[in-house]
Amino acid sequence: MTTDTPRTRLSPDERRAQLLELGMRLFGSRPIEEISIDLVMEEAGVSRGLIYHYFDGKQGYREAVVRYAAEDLFAQTAPPAEGGPMERLAASTAAYVDYVVANEAGYRSLVAAAAGGNEAMRSIYDATFEAMGERFYDEGAADVLGDSPAVRLVIRGWQAMVEKLVLTWCSDRTAMPRADLLALVTNSLPALVHLT
Amino acid sequence: MTTDTPRTRLSPDERRAQLLELGMRLFGSRPIEEISIDLVMEEAGVSRGLIYHYFDGKQGYREAVVRYAAEDLFAQTAPPAEGGPMERLAASTAAYVDYVVANEAGYRSLVAAAAGGNEAMRSIYDATFEAMGERFYDEGAADVLGDSPAVRLVIRGWQAMVEKLVLTWCSDRTAMPRADLLALVTNSLPALVHLT
Repeated sequence: MTTDTPRTRLSPDERRAQLLELGMRLFGSRPIEEISIDLVMEEAGVSRGLIYHYFDGKQGYREAVVRYAAEDLFAQTAPPAEGGPMERLAASTAAYVDYVVANEAGYRSLVAAAAGGNEAMRSIYDATFEAMGERFYDEGAADVLGDSPAVRLVIRGWQAMVEKLVLTWCSDRTAMPRADLLALVTNSLPALVHLT
Repeated sequence: MTTDTPRTRLSPDERRAQLLELGMRLFGSRPIEEISIDLVMEEAGVSRGLIYHYFDGKQGYREAVVRYAAEDLFAQTAPPAEGGPMERLAASTAAYVDYVVANEAGYRSLVAAAAGGNEAMRSIYDATFEAMGERFYDEGAADVLGDSPAVRLVIRGWQAMVEKLVLTWCSDRTAMPRADLLALVTNSLPALVHLT
């Protein structure tokens, strides 16, 4: 995204989206608590009053940015329309790995904001992960994995494992080639469900 | 632990340990950022100056409490001296599950402090998890699991999965009996390593 020109005439929706895009970009290089209204004013060339008008203050802005980032993650990891359930799971998982690798700093900020932030931040993150797990079922995973409270518990644990595997792999990619990482995260889910 | 009597004469080491035990107890019912010097003064019946003397201020005290909690977790999950590597792993994992179940609020505080706190908090938590992973090797896990960067990556992912599984299970224990949870977390490590 290019640097926005100050004082461009935008519709309210465009202005809001512009400020959220900016927040996502800022979020990609620093933790959420370093995103101040002053920084946003300076980067977007807008007034304090305008930011408060759209987001109800600093905390409201930060929550909106985290929600925007979580929605972006959810959209970017949507399974493709074609293929069997496990193929679509594999494609969605590959998209998740690529997303984290491409947005590593922002993703780490999201995890940190969710774990250390307030209740609102935590619930945005948790709801996104739950929705990503639920999505498997919308896509027919029940035919392959079955569906029970135990399987759903395993899926949540598997998601946490995948997150940690990908973030650890980002720090040192020599541990295994990307293809092996993808195979590991994809094949581990049925293997884990098989243990229940 | 019993409530400490104010103004008891204690040696410096005993006083320090008393304040850390108190911090652990406070940590078990609230997030780290709610542990203030005023609260510690009130609960321990000691002066502000004494707390600053031992811990170099609020942040120093919080870090010392997190380190103390992490060391406690590490000690409580030590594998037993007897048995084969996988038996000792199973016993250590069972101890971890029991520890989290018994200290759920404090454990959640530890996770939140590590993820959202400063660099020092994060490195205490990360170092503890790394040490728990390393401990498998001290105990002869290499004979069973092998040892390579890929296996070590899998162990770190498995640890994150176990943490999430146990914390999720704490919120709703109807998903599976405790024995099934233990079998799942123990059997999943060799199953995951087998996939690499």
